[in-house]
Amino acid sequence: MALSPPTELPLKAFGWAATDTSGVLSPFHFSRREIGEDDVSLKILFCGVCHSDLHTLKNDWGFTTYPVVPGHEIVGIVTKVGNNVKNFREGDKVGVGVIVESCQTCENCDQDLENYCPRTVFTYNSPYKGTRTQGGYSDFVVVHQRYVLRFPDNLPLDAGAPLLCAGITVYSPMIYYGMTEPGKHLGVAGLGGLGHVAIKFGKAFGLKVTVISTSPSKESEAIDKLGADSFLVSKDPEKMKAAMGTMDYIIDTISAVHSLMPLLGLLKLNGKLVTVGLPNKPLELPIFPLVAGRKLIGGSNIGGMKETQEMLDFCGKHNITADIELIKMDEINTAMERLHKADVKYRFVIDVANSLSSL
Amino acid sequence: MALSPPTELPLKAFGWAATDTSGVLSPFHFSRREIGEDDVSLKILFCGVCHSDLHTLKNDWGFTTYPVVPGHEIVGIVTKVGNNVKNFREGDKVGVGVIVESCQTCENCDQDLENYCPRTVFTYNSPYKGTRTQGGYSDFVVVHQRYVLRFPDNLPLDAGAPLLCAGITVYSPMIYYGMTEPGKHLGVAGLGGLGHVAIKFGKAFGLKVTVISTSPSKESEAIDKLGADSFLVSKDPEKMKAAMGTMDYIIDTISAVHSLMPLLGLLKLNGKLVTVGLPNKPLELPIFPLVAGRKLIGGSNIGGMKETQEMLDFCGKHNITADIELIKMDEINTAMERLHKADVKYRFVIDVANSLSSL
Repeated sequence: MALSPPTELPLKAFGWAATDTSGVLSPFHFSRREIGEDDVSLKILFCGVCHSDLHTLKNDWGFTTYPVVPGHEIVGIVTKVGNNVKNFREGDKVGVGVIVESCQTCENCDQDLENYCPRTVFTYNSPYKGTRTQGGYSDFVVVHQRYVLRFPDNLPLDAGAPLLCAGITVYSPMIYYGMTEPGKHLGVAGLGGLGHVAIKFGKAFGLKVTVISTSPSKESEAIDKLGADSFLVSKDPEKMKAAMGTMDYIIDTISAVHSLMPLLGLLKLNGKLVTVGLPNKPLELPIFPLVAGRKLIGGSNIGGMKETQEMLDFCGKHNITADIELIKMDEINTAMERLHKADVKYRFVIDVANSLSSL
Repeated sequence: MALSPPTELPLKAFGWAATDTSGVLSPFHFSRREIGEDDVSLKILFCGVCHSDLHTLKNDWGFTTYPVVPGHEIVGIVTKVGNNVKNFREGDKVGVGVIVESCQTCENCDQDLENYCPRTVFTYNSPYKGTRTQGGYSDFVVVHQRYVLRFPDNLPLDAGAPLLCAGITVYSPMIYYGMTEPGKHLGVAGLGGLGHVAIKFGKAFGLKVTVISTSPSKESEAIDKLGADSFLVSKDPEKMKAAMGTMDYIIDTISAVHSLMPLLGLLKLNGKLVTVGLPNKPLELPIFPLVAGRKLIGGSNIGGMKETQEMLDFCGKHNITADIELIKMDEINTAMERLHKADVKYRFVIDVANSLSSL
């Protein structure tokens, strides 16, 4: 893939970018747009490391344009606002997630579903007015006010950053598919960045939460540290059999190709399995269990801005943040290698402001 | 598979049964239970020919016990009732569908979801108190009153018979999954026994209905005779592309293995695809369209007794019946061959009382 020469914009920016499919990140000078009337500029303090960042770096999905600065779990401090911006001012703690623009006129945008707008502009690797968006592994970002979130005062900024993507990605389907009835039983399949936050939402909604994982070694931490009620090793046929028909909902966060049959078997009548992982090949869908148990499989993709703000407020109220490993910017390539091996508890967050500036 | 010798019950019955995996039906003498205090006995007038009958005859699903008398779209006249039966009396026009018994004590039965009771007894080919149930290709049947339906006075008995299985199978998911909002756009995939009734329900609910079919030859009939608003040939890539993102709901009645991707593509944001066919192999489930469009795939299996009665009453009110080809009992083997080739418009119904007795 040919490198696209960066279009020169007025504001000088600095971050770390990948320049080819090796995915290796290195220091990168680029430019950002001037702060328009509806824009908010923020100094980036922290940025979470999402698995999508890694997929994009490696061009796993086939639509990466290099150089690319990843990062869409951004927390920072407002440094400047445009004339039309009334809800944010200098010094405010804010967040920016996966989306930085949408058409603002379609039916989906009208319903606060900017995440499903056909003209959504993503925070990085998206075409935008002749340039490409660049993400939060960088010193600052300029974003239209509609896509800026107010960050709850009581939450730590670093551990809160992953809420902007991992958090809303599991929160939104729980609301949309009605997976919040107190006392019901939620299975969380896959215990990574998304899964570990799903446990916390589940408990905050008053659900019984069972983690479904291939790794028996994760049991004690899932229960003692993350608050799950129980732990099910998916490779243990006896225990899987005993758990059949016991769950009302499953959030499936597994991004590798995997079998749905055992998960569908865990669901009760009318059970709902929502998939938020993005395996790059189709899964096998057995029809009998869907029909015989009136079960459904649904998808969901992040959330709209209004709902993302509601999610952040909910997290503020219930003290929900991610469990993170805080890293310096120059540790990012090692972190990506560890992320590839799922060796992280449970989200890397880059201490951007304190480590980017030293370069 | 060994033949199971028929257990002798007190009442002599007569029907047509298959005795091996050839699936060929022939006259068969068997017995039925005495009429208990909660039972209704009915003389069978008409019985619809469901694709499940054919699957069972051929042991396609691997759980057929021979000899088997199929038939679970039964309409008849009450000839005798037990002492506890207050809602039916001799001469009543009644229907019996897919279910003739359930535990009546579980959570599902309590919620009028006998169809999802783990101890459901099906109308044929089910173990029942040391015997096997036998279906409606026969002279009479004895059924617990809970599983007997009142047949609407204004509907023809022959064309109404398929409502007992085909009708409820498409009606129930439309209610459960909320596919009834007037003005919304329903796709009906597959135009057979289930699909053609789904068109009629869709129109009765005030939906725009598009038939999705591989057969261009079915277009005029789907629109002019069955009342569909439009017709989409699934093999025409141009038309499929033009129709992308236009449907709110799809009822997928296709029982052969098929691709879900094109159907998911037809759905709008939040679109729902409900599968009621039973392909005997898993389908390929592409995850991207589910996630990107917050779409769901759900299953559904017939309906409970209360809902089946509601469906029949709804059909009475809206004059909904199946389009049928009425056959004599001795035409059944030819009919099965034609059904196998999907050569039927749109449901065979056996004129049981007028053709079984002549043998």
